[in-house]
Amino acid sequence: MTEYQASNPAFVEEIRQSFAKQTIMGLIGASLTRVEPGVVEITLPYRADLTQQHGYVHAGIVTTIADSACGYAAYSLMPPESDVLAVEFKVNLLRPAKGELFVARAEVIKPGKTLTVVRADVVTTSGAEDRSLVATMQGTMMRLPKRGVTGSTPGALPPS
Amino acid sequence: MTEYQASNPAFVEEIRQSFAKQTIMGLIGASLTRVEPGVVEITLPYRADLTQQHGYVHAGIVTTIADSACGYAAYSLMPPESDVLAVEFKVNLLRPAKGELFVARAEVIKPGKTLTVVRADVVTTSGAEDRSLVATMQGTMMRLPKRGVTGSTPGALPPS
Amino acid sequence: MTEYQASNPAFVEEIRQSFAKQTIMGLIGASLTRVEPGVVEITLPYRADLTQQHGYVHAGIVTTIADSACGYAAYSLMPPESDVLAVEFKVNLLRPAKGELFVARAEVIKPGKTLTVVRADVVTTSGAEDRSLVATMQGTMMRLPKRGVTGSTPGALPPS
Amino acid sequence: MTEYQASNPAFVEEIRQSFAKQTIMGLIGASLTRVEPGVVEITLPYRADLTQQHGYVHAGIVTTIADSACGYAAYSLMPPESDVLAVEFKVNLLRPAKGELFVARAEVIKPGKTLTVVRADVVTTSGAEDRSLVATMQGTMMRLPKRGVTGSTPGALPPS
Repeated sequence: MTEYQASNPAFVEEIRQSFAKQTIMGLIGASLTRVEPGVVEITLPYRADLTQQHGYVHAGIVTTIADSACGYAAYSLMPPESDVLAVEFKVNLLRPAKGELFVARAEVIKPGKTLTVVRADVVTTSGAEDRSLVATMQGTMMRLPKRGVTGSTPGALPPS
Repeated sequence: MTEYQASNPAFVEEIRQSFAKQTIMGLIGASLTRVEPGVVEITLPYRADLTQQHGYVHAGIVTTIADSACGYAAYSLMPPESDVLAVEFKVNLLRPAKGELFVARAEVIKPGKTLTVVRADVVTTSGAEDRSLVATMQGTMMRLPKRGVTGSTPGALPPS
Repeated sequence: MTEYQASNPAFVEEIRQSFAKQTIMGLIGASLTRVEPGVVEITLPYRADLTQQHGYVHAGIVTTIADSACGYAAYSLMPPESDVLAVEFKVNLLRPAKGELFVARAEVIKPGKTLTVVRADVVTTSGAEDRSLVATMQGTMMRLPKRGVTGSTPGALPPS
Repeated sequence: MTEYQASNPAFVEEIRQSFAKQTIMGLIGASLTRVEPGVVEITLPYRADLTQQHGYVHAGIVTTIADSACGYAAYSLMPPESDVLAVEFKVNLLRPAKGELFVARAEVIKPGKTLTVVRADVVTTSGAEDRSLVATMQGTMMRLPKRGVTGSTPGALPPS
């Protein structure tokens, strides 16, 4: 893995504050468990109300924690006064999402001035078992000037 | 759009029953609003506890309804005694997910004996505005023999 | 399909000139067969030296014509003095690429100031058969200021 | 990286023979430079007739070597009497494909009885520079019974 340097000295605090505003994380019970330059982890305990028809955590919820981890991993390398949004992601689902705890670990593959490519693995631990890879995401995150600073609407998103 | 014929006469009822078992749908407040051969829609009203840091519905929740719609659209064309699982999906996020109501409409692009390729558009309506495309998904769904019928574990998913 | 308006009056000629510089198109024998606002088609006749191990056109060559069609469809809606590059694409392969002629038809799904989302279907015709969908691509194209005008390197691509 | 064991003792020879039948590899000048259980590399020297409009190797050609590398990496772990086909892949393009030599290195992420998930990185070397990551692919490969052995048509590909 490449070692990255953060250019925004406040990135850890800003990511924690942003995460706290993601109300969906409270609803599903996810927490931010690691924030480093280019690497972010989000952890989700299993809950019976997060599942698909067979009792496994729904792929969309696995995606929810992977996407936020990717966004914040990209954000961690952006300059101050940035906002981040997800452009797109692709997820391969590798095993049923069963287990006690799910950890989405995102890592920047290629930072860029506008676009950053990120990957996230979601692993589960269950009892004494080894960590199993449940899903893997490859996605593109975009930097925008921070709202309120510029007042601009996102460049990539013209009024609909 | 191609017109498809369902080979499982009970597909509507089976999809409704399966959807009712997806506990995540209850948690987020989504409902199944259309089930036809090759086409399924899931509708989600906006709620303040489903959002990312700017108050838009989180991309992972948009993905959650799109993925289930894709899975059931694929299922609608499968023979009796099938199970469906998502192999992979790719989502492009086109606009911020703001609005009052989100509808994920999935449509089968190519049915197959084992794999079915599906696409879903997620649109939003807000007041008198036109329907805006918020996200689009292209994914692959897999047919498995129904659990309990064969007792087999999924063929593509060897023991981890 | 949405009707788009081109903002660059020279887009048809510029796309033709750019296509002529894509040396790979000459090597594989592809030609540009349709250029309209938001829609571009590239046509490739079957040749025995374009195949994978079973004699079907290689998925990478199917991707080659789909990617160029997507890039030019995005370009057709960009303002003058633009360059286009592919950020990412996802391809589902639906049938073996056999047939006499392959047509990649790209269509803009969502134009944007910086990013444009495009879809391409690749169909084949073989004798009297109906057109069969061989592959479908969903991708993201990026606008950059034209080289030579600004002299800048692409904003999203810092020096490696 | 996980260490994999091949179950087909003839996989190296079979992959070499299959690669030799991929006529597109001869056309573009690619060669098979590494075959191990779960890992395959294909190498492509730069040529002026493989490019897009700016003289960089076309993304579709980068995809061509990545896709074949992924397919053979998946094949290397399949049992005897298998065929492999690509179900889908997603490619992020990270830097312009300039350089003297391009190496696509594919690695199995998750082998399966029917589906195998594979990742490929395409790197370039140029003079004394470090290896730069040009593109990364995440894809799904499918195992089919070998043609001629079973005479069956691929299960996932019903008659069009």
